[in-house]
Amino acid sequence: MAENQSYSLGQIAGLLKAELRGDASVVISGLATLQAATQGQITFLANPAYARFLAQTRASAVIVHPRQASECPVDALVMDNPYLGYAALSHLFDPAPVRPAGRHASAVIAASAQVADSAYIGPHAVICDHAVVGEKVVIDSGVHVGEASIIGKGTRIRANTVIYHGVVIGEECLIQAGAVIGGDGFGFAPGATGWQKIAQIGGVRIGNRVEIGAGTTIDRGALDDTLIHDGVIIDNLVQIAHNVQIGANTAIAACAGIAGSAKIGSNCVIGGGCGIVGHIEIADGVHLTGMTMVTKGITESGLYSSGTSFGSNAQWRKSVARFWQLNDLAKKLKDVEKEVRTLHAESDSRSSSKERSQ
Amino acid sequence: MAENQSYSLGQIAGLLKAELRGDASVVISGLATLQAATQGQITFLANPAYARFLAQTRASAVIVHPRQASECPVDALVMDNPYLGYAALSHLFDPAPVRPAGRHASAVIAASAQVADSAYIGPHAVICDHAVVGEKVVIDSGVHVGEASIIGKGTRIRANTVIYHGVVIGEECLIQAGAVIGGDGFGFAPGATGWQKIAQIGGVRIGNRVEIGAGTTIDRGALDDTLIHDGVIIDNLVQIAHNVQIGANTAIAACAGIAGSAKIGSNCVIGGGCGIVGHIEIADGVHLTGMTMVTKGITESGLYSSGTSFGSNAQWRKSVARFWQLNDLAKKLKDVEKEVRTLHAESDSRSSSKERSQ
Amino acid sequence: MAENQSYSLGQIAGLLKAELRGDASVVISGLATLQAATQGQITFLANPAYARFLAQTRASAVIVHPRQASECPVDALVMDNPYLGYAALSHLFDPAPVRPAGRHASAVIAASAQVADSAYIGPHAVICDHAVVGEKVVIDSGVHVGEASIIGKGTRIRANTVIYHGVVIGEECLIQAGAVIGGDGFGFAPGATGWQKIAQIGGVRIGNRVEIGAGTTIDRGALDDTLIHDGVIIDNLVQIAHNVQIGANTAIAACAGIAGSAKIGSNCVIGGGCGIVGHIEIADGVHLTGMTMVTKGITESGLYSSGTSFGSNAQWRKSVARFWQLNDLAKKLKDVEKEVRTLHAESDSRSSSKERSQ
Repeated sequence: MAENQSYSLGQIAGLLKAELRGDASVVISGLATLQAATQGQITFLANPAYARFLAQTRASAVIVHPRQASECPVDALVMDNPYLGYAALSHLFDPAPVRPAGRHASAVIAASAQVADSAYIGPHAVICDHAVVGEKVVIDSGVHVGEASIIGKGTRIRANTVIYHGVVIGEECLIQAGAVIGGDGFGFAPGATGWQKIAQIGGVRIGNRVEIGAGTTIDRGALDDTLIHDGVIIDNLVQIAHNVQIGANTAIAACAGIAGSAKIGSNCVIGGGCGIVGHIEIADGVHLTGMTMVTKGITESGLYSSGTSFGSNAQWRKSVARFWQLNDLAKKLKDVEKEVRTLHAESDSRSSSKERSQ
Repeated sequence: MAENQSYSLGQIAGLLKAELRGDASVVISGLATLQAATQGQITFLANPAYARFLAQTRASAVIVHPRQASECPVDALVMDNPYLGYAALSHLFDPAPVRPAGRHASAVIAASAQVADSAYIGPHAVICDHAVVGEKVVIDSGVHVGEASIIGKGTRIRANTVIYHGVVIGEECLIQAGAVIGGDGFGFAPGATGWQKIAQIGGVRIGNRVEIGAGTTIDRGALDDTLIHDGVIIDNLVQIAHNVQIGANTAIAACAGIAGSAKIGSNCVIGGGCGIVGHIEIADGVHLTGMTMVTKGITESGLYSSGTSFGSNAQWRKSVARFWQLNDLAKKLKDVEKEVRTLHAESDSRSSSKERSQ
Repeated sequence: MAENQSYSLGQIAGLLKAELRGDASVVISGLATLQAATQGQITFLANPAYARFLAQTRASAVIVHPRQASECPVDALVMDNPYLGYAALSHLFDPAPVRPAGRHASAVIAASAQVADSAYIGPHAVICDHAVVGEKVVIDSGVHVGEASIIGKGTRIRANTVIYHGVVIGEECLIQAGAVIGGDGFGFAPGATGWQKIAQIGGVRIGNRVEIGAGTTIDRGALDDTLIHDGVIIDNLVQIAHNVQIGANTAIAACAGIAGSAKIGSNCVIGGGCGIVGHIEIADGVHLTGMTMVTKGITESGLYSSGTSFGSNAQWRKSVARFWQLNDLAKKLKDVEKEVRTLHAESDSRSSSKERSQ
């Protein structure tokens, strides 16, 4: 736990490579929002919507953009991207427990597993045959690491997560609690007596610096591997089916589901609750707003959406009733357009005959 | 287990404060639906749709509203809210195991943790440093309680749930199996080399009498805490992101997702599969029907909806094609309206010129 | 692990009851896709979209339909349903660990539980009082089997899954990691002081050959049992509420949610992310495309859908704005139609008066 740590403002300026306007010896022992920060704490201004709170801050120091530096009533750390400054600083004040090297006596570690001496294996964790646990890996309590799975250097796996057999996870990843990596893909062949299970003999390969949320499930491949590339970040309760491929640095928000063999590009942002059908390809740089239903491939980067937004139930009932009449309405509109053209033609011919008759 | 318990009808009438019309000495050893209940069981009539089953019931007794009491063919417990009567009675016949005070030998409890003698700590549970487990708390098997987290009096946590460090849970809560409370919020700053993790240094604070469903995830705050107020009930597989606030007695059905910093009022009902975007506020008493996508704040109580409802795929394809033409259709309609006005004007001027000419 | 197994092509032909066109003595040690398979591996051609890869395959053998047999450049196993052939074959090359009979020393097994000698009970598993674990059952690490629950012959339960008390699971089922079966249904009665918990005193009964995905939650019934019939297959992160009934051989894809007391027929296919409201009935053979919101019962088999599909955010914004004007637009269209009819009538009367006047 770093909770009780404190730093001088000069130390922090050095860490952030920020310009210090103020007293380098001020002691900072916490980080808080612009509104909540008090004496001894540092804060930041990244979102212009909060600029109005700057003048009243009770923080000891604020990370600000050069634009706002002159308006800062207290000591300032000036840098071009205060949000990145906050991101870096947050780790100094993280109360998350730091795990020491070692193995809890209650962990069950197969004799054939290779576990680095610098790794932490928590209570009741299970490391199966031929698994490889790298340097400084953290395996929290109740985690299951399956046969022949490999956990790369510095990766941390939170409590009760399950890694099946034959899963390869890169370095410096962070997997939250209750995730399941490498479960069977949903593969069945329809047979005369019902669904015939297809053994899922592929694995899962996860790159470096990947984050995976709590309760998220990533299935193993049917034949080839499911692939999650470097720098991907995945939120909670996301479902990633067998043989999906996720390109580097793509972000996937909570409750999204990606069906089998979909290939998602790099630098995409998939909003919360989105659904993506299987066997399609999505280009790099595609952004989907929340709850978008992707029913076919997307070949160009850009922002995509679906749904109806929302409204009062009374108004919604009317619009929905009309939604199901839309084809009829469109046909009626076409008919009316045609009628109007006819009327116009008649009116025109009448006018011209009138002109002729005059 | 209370499975084999039995009670006299008089005892039950006393417990429910119901008027007994019948034999107080009848022995009741079970609770079932109006259709399924048999000799020795009690049932209830709350939903008028089931009134037609009353005459044929084989139950020994029925909890009924005064309105239906005269039609009850067997002994009756008469009260104004039979559904509340059923709710109270259900606990007498709950077969759920009752946990005795004590600690299973396989549990790993840190020396610095404070665990009440009246608490139950199940097999393979892990109670970390400085955690506080209150009186009569139940921690089932495989549960992880993180560093310095506090579990209030009478709260029960089902198997394999994970409570991270720095989480405060109130009294008389019930958390189902496989939930994850206090995982990292999904906070990253976009940097030159990819997403930069923001340490989530806030916690989670949960009030009293809160219920949390199986597999539900509630993230810790980025700086401030995520807040769940008293009496909130949350179903399974719900995602609650960092810094969300849920007002008292709000109900959230399964598969809903609430994005970061959303503030939900009290006494709301969020239907299953709803999605709520971040950084918005929802008033008290808002009800959302299932799968509603809330894209902005709601300032007034009431019932809100979204989506298209459903229909045959063939009809749906037609309506969807038209949905994406809606702006064009609306413009065409406007054009036609204009044309019709012109035709009318022409027709009127023709009529008046005709009148003049007559 | 069957990973290093190898078989002669003749053995495989016998197993699949396929016609062998080629050398029965060829040794097959792996299974891969048509594009990836190399020397010593077998593959299959089931989807016509991949027929173009047949000529170039480097596999040692291909399972093909009689139609394609003549085009197969290597040894062929000819059968009418190559996909079923692949399904059967996949199990020969499944690297999943095979669990031996026995009980890990760290498992906690109640004295009153009945566990077959041929069952496997993994590390840190918990088998509670009066539970029954059948022949050849596999209980992986960290699984909790509640009081009086029954696990049928040959059923396998993956790591950290929780089975509550009073759950009956049939034979030859497979439950992936992190699932929760038998948690409390979401049942509360609104009372003067908030929600009053209704004890969920029903159980869950699951048939034979049922598959349940990772992180999926199936709640116990309020009074009667929740029922999952034989041959049902359920993907990851699916929510099945109390007293739901799922008919035989129905398939439910990931992230779907089924509300309380819904009764789903047999041989249905529920797409990913679908939501089904409670207390309705869905006929046999209903197929729902992904993210369909079912708001009422369905009495006829067929394919059903909902939603708007997706498009660019710019186009979507326009269509959504119009969606909420649909009732107005429809009324305006009706008005215009009426006007046009009037104009027509006027035009007709003018024409006829003109005719008369001529």
